[in-house]
Amino acid sequence: MHDQAVRRLSDFLRIPSVSTDPAFDHETRRAAEWAAGQLKEIGFRAEIVNTKGHPMVLAHHDGPSAVGVAGGTAGGTRSPRILYYGHYDVQPADPLELWKSPPFEPAIVDGHAFHDAPGQRIVARGAVDDKGQVMTFIEAFRAWHTAHGTLPCAVTVMLEGEEESGSKSLEPFVNAHAERLKAEVCVVSDTGMWDIHTPAITTMLRGLVYVEVMLHGPSHDLHSGMYGGTLVNPINALAAIIGQLHDADRRVQIAGFYDDVDPLPDAVKKQWSQLGFDEREYLGEAGVQVPFGEKGYSTMERMWSRPTCDCNGIIGGYTGKGAKTVIAAHASAKISCRLVAHQDPATIFAGIQRFFADRCPPGCRIEIESHGMSPAIAVPTDSAWLRAAQRGLAKTYGRDAALIGTGGSIPAVGLLQRVLGIDSLLVGFGLDDDRVHSPNEKFELHCFRNGIRAHAAMLAEFAQTTARA
Amino acid sequence: MHDQAVRRLSDFLRIPSVSTDPAFDHETRRAAEWAAGQLKEIGFRAEIVNTKGHPMVLAHHDGPSAVGVAGGTAGGTRSPRILYYGHYDVQPADPLELWKSPPFEPAIVDGHAFHDAPGQRIVARGAVDDKGQVMTFIEAFRAWHTAHGTLPCAVTVMLEGEEESGSKSLEPFVNAHAERLKAEVCVVSDTGMWDIHTPAITTMLRGLVYVEVMLHGPSHDLHSGMYGGTLVNPINALAAIIGQLHDADRRVQIAGFYDDVDPLPDAVKKQWSQLGFDEREYLGEAGVQVPFGEKGYSTMERMWSRPTCDCNGIIGGYTGKGAKTVIAAHASAKISCRLVAHQDPATIFAGIQRFFADRCPPGCRIEIESHGMSPAIAVPTDSAWLRAAQRGLAKTYGRDAALIGTGGSIPAVGLLQRVLGIDSLLVGFGLDDDRVHSPNEKFELHCFRNGIRAHAAMLAEFAQTTARA
Repeated sequence: MHDQAVRRLSDFLRIPSVSTDPAFDHETRRAAEWAAGQLKEIGFRAEIVNTKGHPMVLAHHDGPSAVGVAGGTAGGTRSPRILYYGHYDVQPADPLELWKSPPFEPAIVDGHAFHDAPGQRIVARGAVDDKGQVMTFIEAFRAWHTAHGTLPCAVTVMLEGEEESGSKSLEPFVNAHAERLKAEVCVVSDTGMWDIHTPAITTMLRGLVYVEVMLHGPSHDLHSGMYGGTLVNPINALAAIIGQLHDADRRVQIAGFYDDVDPLPDAVKKQWSQLGFDEREYLGEAGVQVPFGEKGYSTMERMWSRPTCDCNGIIGGYTGKGAKTVIAAHASAKISCRLVAHQDPATIFAGIQRFFADRCPPGCRIEIESHGMSPAIAVPTDSAWLRAAQRGLAKTYGRDAALIGTGGSIPAVGLLQRVLGIDSLLVGFGLDDDRVHSPNEKFELHCFRNGIRAHAAMLAEFAQTTARA
Repeated sequence: MHDQAVRRLSDFLRIPSVSTDPAFDHETRRAAEWAAGQLKEIGFRAEIVNTKGHPMVLAHHDGPSAVGVAGGTAGGTRSPRILYYGHYDVQPADPLELWKSPPFEPAIVDGHAFHDAPGQRIVARGAVDDKGQVMTFIEAFRAWHTAHGTLPCAVTVMLEGEEESGSKSLEPFVNAHAERLKAEVCVVSDTGMWDIHTPAITTMLRGLVYVEVMLHGPSHDLHSGMYGGTLVNPINALAAIIGQLHDADRRVQIAGFYDDVDPLPDAVKKQWSQLGFDEREYLGEAGVQVPFGEKGYSTMERMWSRPTCDCNGIIGGYTGKGAKTVIAAHASAKISCRLVAHQDPATIFAGIQRFFADRCPPGCRIEIESHGMSPAIAVPTDSAWLRAAQRGLAKTYGRDAALIGTGGSIPAVGLLQRVLGIDSLLVGFGLDDDRVHSPNEKFELHCFRNGIRAHAAMLAEFAQTTARA
């Protein structure tokens, strides 16, 4: 069974569904269709729903009641409906030259997984983020379907195609299809384990505001001999503003940036300190020896509980080989802020706009475009659904799941909570060294297989959990 | 005759001799061979001399003595030998999308030249910098050759193929071929006129130090959710350092940068103020309304007599469309300083190295590569050769040449002065709106034709000027 599961995952990974680049639009749709096809094979009513951006995959299975199996209602309770969320789009693969094998030709290679477990891994863009993880629950459904001809409870699947490009269509979609998305809880597999032996449930996620800033100066590129020193150089000017985003203590200088940031509760701080986080190993995975960040916080606090402001890309002027004595007409940068609980994305976006506008050099023009925003999330840690997930994970791994935070953002989680009142259970199977968003992204087959087993076990537990309705 | 001259110039411009990009190496050599072929047609002994970089064109004509014509010696003086310098390489053509016609398919278009003269222009990369200007003296030689079967005095031509990429081979070449480069004076056509009616001789040139700086952080690109805020972001770090290159008064902050800079002599300041420089028009050509630069200086002083530090290019992280939440492994920038008289390029280069090294963030590594350096130049304004050039120009244009400065650099001029003791006469025929180094570079045919006439007239004057030997 697992060989075929790996083969199906490989088929999914071969589709270069890069959502941020319109050149791949056709492939992105193809990935949606491929995933819908998988769900149809195992008894789902699956459809592709068009949006203004990339389409959504929406699929329903009514569980035992669908095929007249007993258990649809038992002891006065209805079989609950569980929503599963994932995304079929992937990050761009560049820089291509750093991949050891082509990013969209999945390679099975031997390697030592995180810590000490030898084993095989699958290497491709999207291996773990998020196609491999989406396939953990689809393969769990397939296993139930193969063994029992149905699922133990009702399931809805929503797969997004814009998670890596700002999720602009998600909110309109959720609003328009609220009825069809009703569920007790949403299960999301787009996060990581504590280590290869220890599952984790993520209960804190940072939010995100992502902008592109362009500073316009002269009407065209100029000769630096003729114009150097007599007018604004847009690259120097943009660099100088970016340089002012942090002070010497690495505090973000956008006005009001920390106004809504609460200190980390002592209880959480204590729990985190007991997780045995290995800073040296964490930085080592990045090839870095020295931690660096906001003064007064540990690396773990910076990663999970502090907001940031990073430049994700910059370009201007001549970037080919050798020298060109040019004053560029404009320069641009991509800048994103990771947000923590209670920071309002729209307020931060406005703060970024003001920060740049206030520093725009005389005679220049600054344009700021939003590439998406989402608030930070805190998931309740005391629900029946979380306890069900904990039981399923404990049965699979033989040990308790860690409750952790994450530095990344999953816009869907906040949206489902806000619009539909549905909390999410973030149960993922990635490892810290999976090179998410980097060349040679991989997913341990060991994690893939256990992830499938864990989802099957959690599904059984959910079916036994009393629905609210 | 002029139609054929324009046709020959067009042939030259069709060769994409971009010296800074190795992809064009074959074309660069082809341009050298084409130019040597032109010189051979009109009686020169011309050869291609290989260097470690792009080849040099070196050609000799012995003047009247070569064909036994009287006048080789007259009244106890020898016919002088004049060296002509130009370059056959061009700047890269990017950004290509801003060209109205392909950069290497010369287009003859109607247009209003600088100030008020309507006329045709030739549009192509290298039209004025420097192929069109090289052809002004080659066509003048051709006219003499056609009319008289020889030239009025001995002429050496040296054409370089690395002027736009740091002139690294020039010094070894000049040292190795010093004997064959001996001449009374060097004539350079790579500068501009005062306006379309008024010729100019450039007597001050700024020097140049050009470096590429790369800041290395993590070993590979990282997910900004996982690593944002916990380690050095190389783009933010590089931008912050670039932002410190100038203070609020736009003074360059590299230690000792101004130590060897003399104040502009009052006499020169006065002469410049009488030139009637139109700041509004100068900035208007660049699409800029507001002057910006070192506090306490006029735009003209900033342009001709003050050193600068400009970022000519920057790149790092994700620069495609849309969003990618990445922390880049490294970021790099091309940075150049324009130098004025008495600043030592090696000292400035060392100052740049120290400036960046002192600000390198913990755990990061900064690499600095030189893309060439040359000192600023001041040409004597009281020589017999300069007076001869002034006479030739006055006969052609009916008015005196302006003695001006220029913000640009021509490494050959300093080198010939230092190594061979040969002063240069910088007589060029470009206009300020020729879009040198920019898309849609052009050369007015009016300037091209008058440039040919002026070179012919100057050559006659040089032949009448007493050689030192």
